[in-house]
Parts: sequence; structure tokens; C-alpha cells
Amino acid sequence: MATSKAPVGNMVIAQSGGPTMVINQSLIGAVLEAKKHKQIKNIYGSLHGIAGILGENFIDLRKESASTLEAVAKTPSSGLGSVRKKPTKDDCLAIFKVLQKYDVRYFFYIGGNDTAETTHIINEEAKANRYPLQCFHIPKTIDNDLRENDHTPGFGSGARFVAEAFMGDNLDNRALPGVKINIIMGRHAGFLTAAAALARVYPDDGPHLVYLPERPFDEGKFAKDVERVYQKLGRCVVAVSEGICDKNGTAIAAKLSKEVDSHGNVQLSGSGALGDLLSGIIKSKTKISRVRADTFGYLQRSFPDIASSVDSGEAREVGKLAVKHAVAGKKQSGSVTINRKAGKKYSPSYGLVELRQVSKETRHMPDKFINKDANDVTPAFIAYAKPLVGNLPEIGRFKGVRVKKLR
Amino acid sequence: MATSKAPVGNMVIAQSGGPTMVINQSLIGAVLEAKKHKQIKNIYGSLHGIAGILGENFIDLRKESASTLEAVAKTPSSGLGSVRKKPTKDDCLAIFKVLQKYDVRYFFYIGGNDTAETTHIINEEAKANRYPLQCFHIPKTIDNDLRENDHTPGFGSGARFVAEAFMGDNLDNRALPGVKINIIMGRHAGFLTAAAALARVYPDDGPHLVYLPERPFDEGKFAKDVERVYQKLGRCVVAVSEGICDKNGTAIAAKLSKEVDSHGNVQLSGSGALGDLLSGIIKSKTKISRVRADTFGYLQRSFPDIASSVDSGEAREVGKLAVKHAVAGKKQSGSVTINRKAGKKYSPSYGLVELRQVSKETRHMPDKFINKDANDVTPAFIAYAKPLVGNLPEIGRFKGVRVKKLR
Repeated sequence: MATSKAPVGNMVIAQSGGPTMVINQSLIGAVLEAKKHKQIKNIYGSLHGIAGILGENFIDLRKESASTLEAVAKTPSSGLGSVRKKPTKDDCLAIFKVLQKYDVRYFFYIGGNDTAETTHIINEEAKANRYPLQCFHIPKTIDNDLRENDHTPGFGSGARFVAEAFMGDNLDNRALPGVKINIIMGRHAGFLTAAAALARVYPDDGPHLVYLPERPFDEGKFAKDVERVYQKLGRCVVAVSEGICDKNGTAIAAKLSKEVDSHGNVQLSGSGALGDLLSGIIKSKTKISRVRADTFGYLQRSFPDIASSVDSGEAREVGKLAVKHAVAGKKQSGSVTINRKAGKKYSPSYGLVELRQVSKETRHMPDKFINKDANDVTPAFIAYAKPLVGNLPEIGRFKGVRVKKLR
Repeated sequence: MATSKAPVGNMVIAQSGGPTMVINQSLIGAVLEAKKHKQIKNIYGSLHGIAGILGENFIDLRKESASTLEAVAKTPSSGLGSVRKKPTKDDCLAIFKVLQKYDVRYFFYIGGNDTAETTHIINEEAKANRYPLQCFHIPKTIDNDLRENDHTPGFGSGARFVAEAFMGDNLDNRALPGVKINIIMGRHAGFLTAAAALARVYPDDGPHLVYLPERPFDEGKFAKDVERVYQKLGRCVVAVSEGICDKNGTAIAAKLSKEVDSHGNVQLSGSGALGDLLSGIIKSKTKISRVRADTFGYLQRSFPDIASSVDSGEAREVGKLAVKHAVAGKKQSGSVTINRKAGKKYSPSYGLVELRQVSKETRHMPDKFINKDANDVTPAFIAYAKPLVGNLPEIGRFKGVRVKKLR
């Protein structure tokens, strides 16, 4: 089905999976680019991903003003609505019927690995059914777990939220000492949890411990780690991924939850159960009395006005590039990637891979980013994540010259 | 013990209770003002409130550079550390012994109603023991529940965090519809929860329901309210105070918690139990399947870099004013208050009241701020809170011209 020349027709763009702070940058990047190319006629936004195609719920994105487009670009969460839906073969046939009726030759789907899988399925079925479709995946995920990428749009801003949250929370813990556990999103990959480490400014700053899904979580070791920090500093701030697993690879939060989506993902976020469980471990296994846990939840992916500027710019760029690739016609399908140029100064390089290369399976934190004790990140991770997150707020601290005690 | 003329001597300043984003503004405001007055010699910062006096743990605030002072002012949480401690008579005697040894004649204590109570106790005991002390309370609390005040420093910034969080979370819920419940801090007063309503930009924006501790919470009514909104919009975002009570006045979260501090406050935050309980009610009493809950936790009081500028300015001012009152010597003790000048444009007016007037008991949301149905705020509340929070981020939304469905 691969065409050497791009077709002329209408375009559908949609968003899928969990929102991010910059997913609309990709959407607007693609729309603005599409407007430049004569092959693309109407630009339809499908509401709630492929559900909007099946229901023929499209909005006309050519009717949006330049100022609205820019305002939406800066607004978190999926401006077209999202969905978590894996299409069956019948769904695909129904989709092609709609696409044909609306003369759609371009399909862009913004999302993570599940979205890439859906794009891949639609692309394969389109080829099998001889429906000519330029079919491109545009990456996003705060989890930062797409294969073939150095990092993904959405991560830098989610990481920025997590880092800032830990900066504040570390100060809170310093003011009222105790153990504070914060549960961070990330189903299988620990990148977002690891970003908590960017909060450290002074040598005694938290997070003092970081637990990632890439390493088995042991309750006894956890309690001992916390106790050791507490004995040294009189306090302890802990970053824990919602996806931490026991030595058999079973997610601890999954044991406390029963909800599963159509991609087979167990619902982990949005409950305090894991935090409460971990607090209980510290209270029962140590003599520390003040133990608190917070679960950051959805704020990590949709808090307004704090997006990383590097992340925003890259999210815009991948949207543009997907359209450029589609209209160039050299490839009929693919997923835009971001990698990093060699050199001291951070600089991204963009590429294009086959859909199957990023779909379904995810990548994990590389070993070089995790310390030997499995309770912290390495300086290599900090160097990796810092440019994606950008400059963080200044944290003032007293020099604190002690007044000499009088007799 | 009231002196017509202010004494000459050293000063101790301290912070107590839950941190806020602007409590250091008050501290720095007081320190900078103190430097202007000859009656005040050394300026000691007591670490962790009155615990620092008892342990003679003071830092010399005259040794901090102007740039450090300004950096600390902009940094959230209590720069001197905090404590939750109600002093006994014996504690007071021990405190006076230390204060005398260090020639302290000025004591400033920054905090909420419990801190005011402590200041009041110390002041009364100082008078009873003929220890001459200028004894002033500087207000702060994100709960906004100090009597004699229109509002309190810390509230505007906490409210800003809550409003921004709901802006993002409402967009998240719009993208992936369902019921979303967010639990907000506020032990007895609903002001901070009410601030969620500031997030509304478009007519269908959440929070769609707001539950405050000032009105009895009924599970059945809650489920019916949520179902009604869900049937209309296909989604529902709910703001719930951690302090909601049943018809007997028992906090629902308190039934799930056992921890109590020395002021008699039951620990409510930092657990997802209330959110999980409320999710469970919706899941069992309605047919809605996607129900999520987040508990915002400590981020509400210590997230960096988003403080309201009005709040920051007022926090600085009450610190300054406490010192001005103390050195003026007309009063030997008191608590600085903020009220609001009559008129369309927001403008604060500052006053001074007796310590007992703000200590111990708190104030609640006035009836005029709560709707008849007990599930939302009124426009009067919005008008009240808006100037304290400041301008919120712009939220872009597509005009969304529907593509005509083809046959």
C-alpha cells in the first residue's frame, strides 16, 4: 500500500490515553503544519480518539482561530478528549467505512504505547483491506516509556511537577519532621518517580529514598532504609512509584485494585491504598510515629502553567514532523521519535520508526540510572533528566549561624 | 504588665503549625522591620517554634544577608522549622528562664489559632510571673479560619494551588470522563475546598459539586447529586473537604483515623481513605464505573513558585506590623488582623486584636458563601476569594464547530 506520492484528501487527528500538560502542543503543531500543505484538505479533530471516528464526531479544526489554537496549545490535557480503546477487526472495518465516507487519507494519533498499538492495528488492517491511509503516531507519555525514544513529550513537564512538588514537600518535612511517602505515577517505568531526585538542592534535601518498579520492592529493606535515614537526619522523604512490584513481579498496588482496561492495564492511580500500606509498614516495623503519605495522582499530568519549555517545544515539533512525513509520502506510516545528539549541550534529534517498534511493549529505566542499593537514582539520571525539566524555582535557606548557648 | 514605653532588649521570632507558601514572607517582614528599630538588639530565630526556646536552639537572623532573607521570603514552608506544641505552665516557666537568660523582651509567633493560643498562654503566664515581654501573634493559615479576620495569609496561595489543580483536573476529567473526587485540606472550615470553584471558566467546568465541613454530609444525597450531574454532562468533578462531618458533627475522616496532636486535633490529611470511601459510595450506589479520587495533601500548603502576589504582600505586611506595634509600646500584646475596606476594588485594612480573640476557636464559612443545596458555593464567595488568589492561567478551548454528519 506504500505510496511514493502522498494522496490528496482530508485528515483526521485524535488523542488517546492519559493526558499530559503538552499533548495539545503536538495537536496544534500538527494542525498548523497541515494548513501549509495542499494535499491536506479538511482537518478534522476526532473527539475522544477512535471513538469519535466510530461515532462520526468530528470538529472542523480549520474553523479555529490562530489565537484559539495557541491558547489550546498551552492548555493541559487532551483538547479533543481522549479514550482508552483497542480496536477489534470489526472496529477497524467500521473505521474505514467512516474514513472513506469523509474522504480521509491522513490519520494522526497522539498517545503512548497503547495508542501506537492502536495506530499499528489500524495501519495493518488498512493495508489488508486496501484502504489507502497515511497513518502516523505522534508520541506522548508522562511515563517516558516508549521504545526507540530517548524521552517522550509529556515527561519533561510531568517530571517538572514532581520535582517542584518534592521541593515543597521536602521543606514541609524539614519544618515538621517525620517520614513522608509520596506515590508517583508510572505503571512499569520509574522515570517520573526518579524525577523526584531533581528536587534536591542542599545535601540533606529529600527525596532521601527512591523506589522504582524496575527493582523488586522488599518491605523489610524499605523499613530499614527509612530507619537509617531517619536516624541520621531526624526525618525522611520517600518517592515511591505506583508500579513497585514484589519479587515475583506482581505490582503491590495491583493487589489492592481490581480495575482493568481494554489494553489489559490494571488501574493503579487515584487511590491512597498503596501510600497507606507503606505508612503502615513504617509504623509497624519502626518506632517512628509521624508518618504521612500523599498520592500525587492526576495533578502530575494536568497541572496548568508549569509545563517545561523544552518539553512544550518538542511536543510541538513531533506534531509538525508527523505531518511533514505524511505529506512527503516517502513513508505511508510511522512514529516520530526523539533522541539526543551527542555532546555536552542538550539538543534533540528527531526520527521516524515503524509503528510496531513503539507499540505495545514499553521500555524501562536503564540500569545506569538506578543505584546499586535499588533505593535511589544515579548522577547519570540527573544529567539525563535536568535539561528536559528546565530551571527549577530557587529555594532559599538561612545560613543559620547558631547563637552560642549561655550557661 | 502593660508598658507605655517599649522595652530595650533582644527579640525571638518563631513559626508554628502547618507551613504555608508565604509564612516566610511574614518572618522576613518582621526581621526587616525589627532591623529598623533601636529598641530591638539581637534578632533570634527559634528553631521549631517554642521547642527551640526550650532547647535554646536559636539562629542569629542579623547574620543573614539581604539576598538570603529575600530568597527565604519567596520559599514555601517554615524556614525556621515548625512544631505543634501547646505549652504547660511548667513549659512557660522554663521558657521565661531562657528568655531572661538571653535578655529577650520581644516574642513574635507566626501561625494559626493554635499558635495564637500558645502566644496567649505565654502572654498570660508572663504577666502572672511578672516577666516583661512584648508578645505578638502573626497570622497564617491556609484554612483561613482565624476569627476577627476577613482572611489570613497563606489562604490566597493555598486557594490558588487548589484552583489551578481543579482547572487541570477538570480538563483531565473532560478528556477521560467519569467521576473524579478531590479531597481538600481544611479541618473545620471549608474556605480552601470552596476555592476549587474558582477553577470554573466555561459553563460546564468542574468542580460540579462542592462539599464543605459547615454542612452535614449525607451519603445518599451525595450519590444522588453526583448521578444528576453525570446524567447531564457525562462526567462529574467533586471537591470535598477532608473535614466533612455526618449529621452528628463527627468528621467522616476521623472515623478512619486515630492520631491526635497536643491541641486535640485529629490527623485528617495524608491518607486516601476518605477519597476511597467516597469512591466506594458512588460505585455501590450508582451504575457509574469510572470513579477516581485524589487527595491533594501537603502540596496545597508548600508547592513552590505559585504563591498569590496579594497573599505574599499581605503576609509580609502582617510581619512588619507586628514589630511596629511591639516597638510602639502602646500595647504589650496582640494579634495582627487583616480585614477588607468597603468598596468595589479590593483593598486590605490591618488591625490589632487581643490574643484571646483569635486563639483556640476558629471561624467557619459564613452562610452567604454556601448554596441552599449545601453542595456548592455562591457568587458571593467567588467575589470574596478572587482578589486573594489573583489571575489564574488562561484555559484554551476549541470553538468546536461540528462537522456535519454524512449519510
